[in-house]
Amino acid sequence: MSKHPGLQVEESRRTLGPLFAPIQAELAEAERIFQHELRSRFPFVQALVEHCGDYQGKRLRPALVLLAAKACGRITGDHPVLAAVVEMIHTATLVHDDILDESIVRRHAATVNAEWGNETAVLLGDYMFTHAFHLAASLDSTQACRWIGAATNKLCEGEMQQVHHRGNLDLDEASYFAIIEGKTAELTAVSCRLGAHYAGADDEVCEALDRYGRCLGIAFQIADDVLDIWGEERTTGKSLGTDLEKQKLTIPIIRLLESGDPETVDLARRLLNEAQAESRKRLRPLLEESGALDYSWEKARWYVKQAIDALDVLPPSDSKAVLVVLAEYVVRRTS
Amino acid sequence: MSKHPGLQVEESRRTLGPLFAPIQAELAEAERIFQHELRSRFPFVQALVEHCGDYQGKRLRPALVLLAAKACGRITGDHPVLAAVVEMIHTATLVHDDILDESIVRRHAATVNAEWGNETAVLLGDYMFTHAFHLAASLDSTQACRWIGAATNKLCEGEMQQVHHRGNLDLDEASYFAIIEGKTAELTAVSCRLGAHYAGADDEVCEALDRYGRCLGIAFQIADDVLDIWGEERTTGKSLGTDLEKQKLTIPIIRLLESGDPETVDLARRLLNEAQAESRKRLRPLLEESGALDYSWEKARWYVKQAIDALDVLPPSDSKAVLVVLAEYVVRRTS
Repeated sequence: MSKHPGLQVEESRRTLGPLFAPIQAELAEAERIFQHELRSRFPFVQALVEHCGDYQGKRLRPALVLLAAKACGRITGDHPVLAAVVEMIHTATLVHDDILDESIVRRHAATVNAEWGNETAVLLGDYMFTHAFHLAASLDSTQACRWIGAATNKLCEGEMQQVHHRGNLDLDEASYFAIIEGKTAELTAVSCRLGAHYAGADDEVCEALDRYGRCLGIAFQIADDVLDIWGEERTTGKSLGTDLEKQKLTIPIIRLLESGDPETVDLARRLLNEAQAESRKRLRPLLEESGALDYSWEKARWYVKQAIDALDVLPPSDSKAVLVVLAEYVVRRTS
Repeated sequence: MSKHPGLQVEESRRTLGPLFAPIQAELAEAERIFQHELRSRFPFVQALVEHCGDYQGKRLRPALVLLAAKACGRITGDHPVLAAVVEMIHTATLVHDDILDESIVRRHAATVNAEWGNETAVLLGDYMFTHAFHLAASLDSTQACRWIGAATNKLCEGEMQQVHHRGNLDLDEASYFAIIEGKTAELTAVSCRLGAHYAGADDEVCEALDRYGRCLGIAFQIADDVLDIWGEERTTGKSLGTDLEKQKLTIPIIRLLESGDPETVDLARRLLNEAQAESRKRLRPLLEESGALDYSWEKARWYVKQAIDALDVLPPSDSKAVLVVLAEYVVRRTS
């Protein structure tokens, strides 16, 4: 295994773009709808919305809506709207997460809280949440609003649990998984479910796509958590090491504390209690030598396999193949 | 005019309860739906939800949904759901407003930010926003989601404008009204519109009820802004004077700066720039003697009259009479 798996994961993510070539037109349409829905007659608000346009990230969630649709049937006029909705929810959570984490950089741009203050960031996040639901309600039925509502409810609950457990050095693995399933996997799951449902898929297929998105989301979050310890800010374009500074326990740390030898655990606890920026570097060798890092990647790979297995319900197609590759990319170059 | 109009307004508000006797059962049902929708399997989240139940306020917005319904036709099973939705949106904005204002007391209880920190308050507000839309989507059509979405979009925009103009001592009256129409009147307007529409009212009546709610909301916010300067925390149960401390200009101050004599304006600007808690007491006589206070109440009364006039479209009924009294209460004992 590489000594810098996080860095390599990030590199692999940047290569996702070409995978999305078959849905490029619909992704662009989703982006147009996103900007159009959020536009404001107030120049201050408009400037904030445009700033968040610079957050242009991986577009993972809108891509999942569109790829799931294509793999289950065909992309309709509703899909780019749904893709814009899930991206808007995701962007709203990023804006609020940056307040919680006191982050100052996001995708190589200043965070809203760093540039305009926490108050503006709170309100801009709200503005995006309410616009997302307003946009979802532009569709014919209440189905999308209901599913997106349920998913974001669980998302917020997961985030609240995470804040609640900050500084809790006894957080166990089950609680960690409950948190990341809420804060990350609910939205990737509902993205796939919506893509399938609005392409005319039956309940069984919708369930399978939900499971694919859920397992992919969990694997993705594990990779993100590893990246927070091993990544480089220059490459990732966001503030790193915030999990440790905020005493937010993630799987490598939890594993170390649960299974390391007493002396190592003792040192790790001391470093976590200090909650300094440099603790990150001093914890890395402990996590690597104890096997906690390997363990984390193993878990991620297990979820990737579950995600891919869930796709068995679908007939072979180019889009299904992309969904498989997408899941594999999450933990690429780590084995 | 009394020397303490704010205090008297608050006293009058506490007497609103008896007015709601005809809709008491439906208000209780709305309260039950509110708590049921927000319940969580996580004890920490559940405790937060229950804490906000202690915010039990005037229940103005749910009462508007139900009274508008009764005045336009009859209360159906949808109305208590809608009443719970608008109260949930309102509570979400209160939780987030308390972060913006750094308030520590709300309705005689600690604010969420004061008790559990800003991070938890951000997430609890989000949790309430998403649950409100999830609940709205439980109705048959997307109409409620669309109207509530549009209203909350404008609400957030109004709040962002307010934050943007903090410290701007040149804020004019038109901008102030644009802000309070967004942050307060959109939600009271949509409450009345929803009540009317789901009672089977036609477009003309829905428009009239929207106008009633909008004008009542504006008058209500003017009264609130006056209360922030003249009220007593003991009576109102919330942190006061925060507008001045945050250099958030409201109508009495705007009027004073626009129409006071140069010496008074100069002193007022100096006090506003100091932004101290005691500035509030030193500004009061300037606002009273310059006529800026009277002017503010006059504006509030004008909006109350507009609200009542909008009800002309309705036939006489007990509920219509309550809506009239409700509008009058906003500025009661001030003339």
